Amino acid sequence: MSSRSHKRAVTPSDGSGLSKENMDHERIEHVGIRDSPPSFAGSDEDLTDHYTRYPNRWSKYREYIREPAAEFFGVMILIIFGAGVDCQVVLSADPRVASSPKGDYLSLNFGWAVGTALGVWVSGGISGGHINPAVTIALATFRDFPWRKVPAYIFAQVMGGLCGAGIIYANYIHAIDLVEGGRHIRTVPGTAGLFSTYAMDYMTSVSCFFDEFVGTAVLLIVVCAIGDARNGPPPPGLAPLVLFIMILGIGASLGMQTGYAINPARDLGPRLLTSMVGYGSDVFTFRNQYWLWCPVIAPIIGALFGVFVYDTLFFTGAESLLNRP
Amino acid sequence: MSSRSHKRAVTPSDGSGLSKENMDHERIEHVGIRDSPPSFAGSDEDLTDHYTRYPNRWSKYREYIREPAAEFFGVMILIIFGAGVDCQVVLSADPRVASSPKGDYLSLNFGWAVGTALGVWVSGGISGGHINPAVTIALATFRDFPWRKVPAYIFAQVMGGLCGAGIIYANYIHAIDLVEGGRHIRTVPGTAGLFSTYAMDYMTSVSCFFDEFVGTAVLLIVVCAIGDARNGPPPPGLAPLVLFIMILGIGASLGMQTGYAINPARDLGPRLLTSMVGYGSDVFTFRNQYWLWCPVIAPIIGALFGVFVYDTLFFTGAESLLNRP
Amino acid sequence: MSSRSHKRAVTPSDGSGLSKENMDHERIEHVGIRDSPPSFAGSDEDLTDHYTRYPNRWSKYREYIREPAAEFFGVMILIIFGAGVDCQVVLSADPRVASSPKGDYLSLNFGWAVGTALGVWVSGGISGGHINPAVTIALATFRDFPWRKVPAYIFAQVMGGLCGAGIIYANYIHAIDLVEGGRHIRTVPGTAGLFSTYAMDYMTSVSCFFDEFVGTAVLLIVVCAIGDARNGPPPPGLAPLVLFIMILGIGASLGMQTGYAINPARDLGPRLLTSMVGYGSDVFTFRNQYWLWCPVIAPIIGALFGVFVYDTLFFTGAESLLNRP
Amino acid sequence: MSSRSHKRAVTPSDGSGLSKENMDHERIEHVGIRDSPPSFAGSDEDLTDHYTRYPNRWSKYREYIREPAAEFFGVMILIIFGAGVDCQVVLSADPRVASSPKGDYLSLNFGWAVGTALGVWVSGGISGGHINPAVTIALATFRDFPWRKVPAYIFAQVMGGLCGAGIIYANYIHAIDLVEGGRHIRTVPGTAGLFSTYAMDYMTSVSCFFDEFVGTAVLLIVVCAIGDARNGPPPPGLAPLVLFIMILGIGASLGMQTGYAINPARDLGPRLLTSMVGYGSDVFTFRNQYWLWCPVIAPIIGALFGVFVYDTLFFTGAESLLNRP
Repeated sequence: MSSRSHKRAVTPSDGSGLSKENMDHERIEHVGIRDSPPSFAGSDEDLTDHYTRYPNRWSKYREYIREPAAEFFGVMILIIFGAGVDCQVVLSADPRVASSPKGDYLSLNFGWAVGTALGVWVSGGISGGHINPAVTIALATFRDFPWRKVPAYIFAQVMGGLCGAGIIYANYIHAIDLVEGGRHIRTVPGTAGLFSTYAMDYMTSVSCFFDEFVGTAVLLIVVCAIGDARNGPPPPGLAPLVLFIMILGIGASLGMQTGYAINPARDLGPRLLTSMVGYGSDVFTFRNQYWLWCPVIAPIIGALFGVFVYDTLFFTGAESLLNRP
Repeated sequence: MSSRSHKRAVTPSDGSGLSKENMDHERIEHVGIRDSPPSFAGSDEDLTDHYTRYPNRWSKYREYIREPAAEFFGVMILIIFGAGVDCQVVLSADPRVASSPKGDYLSLNFGWAVGTALGVWVSGGISGGHINPAVTIALATFRDFPWRKVPAYIFAQVMGGLCGAGIIYANYIHAIDLVEGGRHIRTVPGTAGLFSTYAMDYMTSVSCFFDEFVGTAVLLIVVCAIGDARNGPPPPGLAPLVLFIMILGIGASLGMQTGYAINPARDLGPRLLTSMVGYGSDVFTFRNQYWLWCPVIAPIIGALFGVFVYDTLFFTGAESLLNRP
Repeated sequence: MSSRSHKRAVTPSDGSGLSKENMDHERIEHVGIRDSPPSFAGSDEDLTDHYTRYPNRWSKYREYIREPAAEFFGVMILIIFGAGVDCQVVLSADPRVASSPKGDYLSLNFGWAVGTALGVWVSGGISGGHINPAVTIALATFRDFPWRKVPAYIFAQVMGGLCGAGIIYANYIHAIDLVEGGRHIRTVPGTAGLFSTYAMDYMTSVSCFFDEFVGTAVLLIVVCAIGDARNGPPPPGLAPLVLFIMILGIGASLGMQTGYAINPARDLGPRLLTSMVGYGSDVFTFRNQYWLWCPVIAPIIGALFGVFVYDTLFFTGAESLLNRP
Repeated sequence: MSSRSHKRAVTPSDGSGLSKENMDHERIEHVGIRDSPPSFAGSDEDLTDHYTRYPNRWSKYREYIREPAAEFFGVMILIIFGAGVDCQVVLSADPRVASSPKGDYLSLNFGWAVGTALGVWVSGGISGGHINPAVTIALATFRDFPWRKVPAYIFAQVMGGLCGAGIIYANYIHAIDLVEGGRHIRTVPGTAGLFSTYAMDYMTSVSCFFDEFVGTAVLLIVVCAIGDARNGPPPPGLAPLVLFIMILGIGASLGMQTGYAINPARDLGPRLLTSMVGYGSDVFTFRNQYWLWCPVIAPIIGALFGVFVYDTLFFTGAESLLNRP
């Protein structure tokens, strides 16, 4: 057992992939977001001496809600940092709010990168740290993430986005009032653009779709790579650091035209919040159904394309649809 | 022994949690700040051949002061970088001091992030690297950090903040004189805001409290996550890197309205220093007792809330109050 | 076997260097880009229980194209981020495109650093993650990277640069039209400088050559160092993080005069794209054959010099030409 | 042997501290710059099957020059990035050189941080990666770094600084000519400030000394901490990442008043270069012997103080002077 649990420890993708439960670990391991090395799974029995699975009644119920709860908090933290930096940088640029701007465009890129990294660090070991419906759908389609979990994941992700946006809206409401010119004035895009994405004026619909498609495809190709135990992945627990670097870059390189949603929950959750707190239905009627085809459908298709490309050309793991006999 | 000490090495949370002394290691391990892997504790006996615990008399006394001294230096380094970057960026923006500004708002975010990371790297393996009374109190409340250590920790943290602010005040005193317009002129907030936090004018008291509450709650949720051996934590020794990323983000996203104290010692220590060096009692009378309820009480309540949420929903370790039978 | 595969795990450069196939792993290991620890190679047989090398017919063909495909995608991702950040920052500075600039010069440095790191994370474990013909040629000359692979690598790298630039050109074409003043107007350097490098006016040819030479020599010295198992390399999987830091610095320190190509594929691929989409032959006639001697020949010579210096003074590995009897 | 080499691997400071040669490894290990885990030293015999210590005659000579050569290249790379970013940012701010500035003050902080990290990654495993005479002297005084090596180290460090500055001077000479207004005009500080440090006008001599003293003391306290195997150090090979974070912070927080030399070789080497290429003796007569007491003596005293404080309060390793019976 000792030498075995040891081999687990040094070989992230060892033979522990037989039972469904372990396949799950394998799967998450391979998408590189599940960061806890299999040794933990492997050494649970070693822990039981000072650790009982269900110390009290609540801990039993907890088992059922942990995964969606992790996705909820992951996206909530993403939005607290992301929408937060949008509000701080954009609102502070208004002299009625602050004497000097409290950040610049690069701050926006860092804020979203921090939110993504921390969101995954909070949820990675529990739910796999998707915090993005496009990732969840792509992994369910091409890898062995179970479809039965998809609805709960996506619902939790969107709700997390909605609640995170609510926290930031409550936090910066006085500054928003100052910028909008009054408590009852809310304009779209205007300050609605602090929470969800709106394309620049010169952009055509095709360009908007293409921008989100490219960003999400690149996102998933890299996510697959850093989760591929045969492609020199980062050490366990540091996948979020790679995501930090990647989101920083996507914001700096592919950020200005459509606001790099590349995540339906990151956009739809906050958009629902804005529609609820006074921005009205305009957030959904902007550029007929922009909210649907640009920040929701384009990322999902881009994610599917990214995983398809990676699995076709590079991935050799058995859990990929494309590596089935 | 070999295979055992080896299992220690690959399994951060192995069965070494029985004796109180080891529980401590476990505990700190679980809050993710104690970075030295248990293997060190486990292999002390391997070291004794070239290492005696008490080579001389002083080393005996040292045992008693190491932990509070680590907290003292941790906070001192935090403030040297944090108050230092405040002084450099804000003072250099004045043409009487420098021909061009020596940093921008993003520099402030980086400076505080660096201070936090280095403060924890200096103290992490010795005291657990709290460097924040809110963290200490939350861990004593919900985890098994011993209450008897709390007073010494908090005192050391506040004194570290006071001394760090003193070093920076001495370092930038000529520039402060230039900006204030004379050696005997000190204004509040004015340059007092370089050392401790003061809210923006448009902020209501409720908003101030909420801002600090949210920031500290997020801080603790992430701290709990990166310290949870079952939630894909970063490798031993890299928790401060996650804190670097987080404080960078908190400053960029939740920084402008109340100056993101999120740490009573970070704010109270420097505030005491300013009251001593000529800013007078105004630093305490600002917005009646602002110093107490906003940067002291709000972070403590936010920290308690953050750990409560994490332990309720995610944490399965036996050292949490919520996982007791 | 267990203790052996274990020693593999803890000793990156263990005795696995006898068969040619393993020498390859050694080689890539030593250039510090191949990030997957030899344990994977060593434990393939452990995996076979749930993993068959060729699950289906396609997986057989895949074997032959994986390495060049990895180089192709590595450079494509590098250019998507690099040319992308050039377009976003430079085009958004034009009021006809955006109301405020969407990034500054430091954003450019970060964008190229992100592209390099992610490009290597995607290709590192498969092709060695050169994503730079100068690196490929230098390793084939002084290390034991097989010359027979060089043509396919370089072709794939240049094509990856061309395709990446095409994606970014398509993504920002409307903004380019706005800046150029019309759909059929394309100027060199003008917006051609967003994709490939052009020297500043005051630079002499010698200075241009020297700038690229120095940058690439430093690049290769560091690449050799972080790949040298006897020179305290970063943990497996984190070499791209060092590259991120290095490219950030090269852009900030050696970036302005010649645009730090330091990579023939990064410059020639996008230059071919610009010549195809309407910028015409001017991209090649600029400063007679600038495209050839500055961003192509200088980096190759600099890379050869860098590896020569490192291997002469520091490297003790048997795979270096200079350590042959 | 296997289990032993294994214990080496998982226990950075194992019992290998008896022979002088290993004490060296221990020593360097403990100052946290030597990044190669002792396992390499320990497993040399495992390597001999495909590796002979002296494959040819040159490799014998190499043994004698490797350590100073590593220090030389470490400092040279530090200055190439550091002086390079100074030149790029400051010179490009002049409209005669560039149409827009190619970086801001934060870029300067990143450039010096990158140079430090890469300088240590290049030299860390060979010479211990001091790249700073103050570090060398402090370790020789309080730890067991042999005094006999000190002169060669310091000479190599200063020469590395001189050569690095020469490379950057040659690289940016045309831009310097444009800013100075002619090929034969060189002013002090003027463009001499691009290579070595000069204090701001309002600074008193005491303040200058204090600024450098504080910066270097903090530097060494953190260096000691990340090298202390009992204080939760970063993983082997990542100490330069901590230095990257620290130098970024020192530049942002303690950078503007004296230019944060905190390293005699970083300042004296380039200063010698400037005195040789036309700036004349003014670089030494500025503020009578400023070059000596501020960027040379203050850092050395600060470094001694920093190590003294850390070893007194925290360090328990046997290689410290303060832990001798």
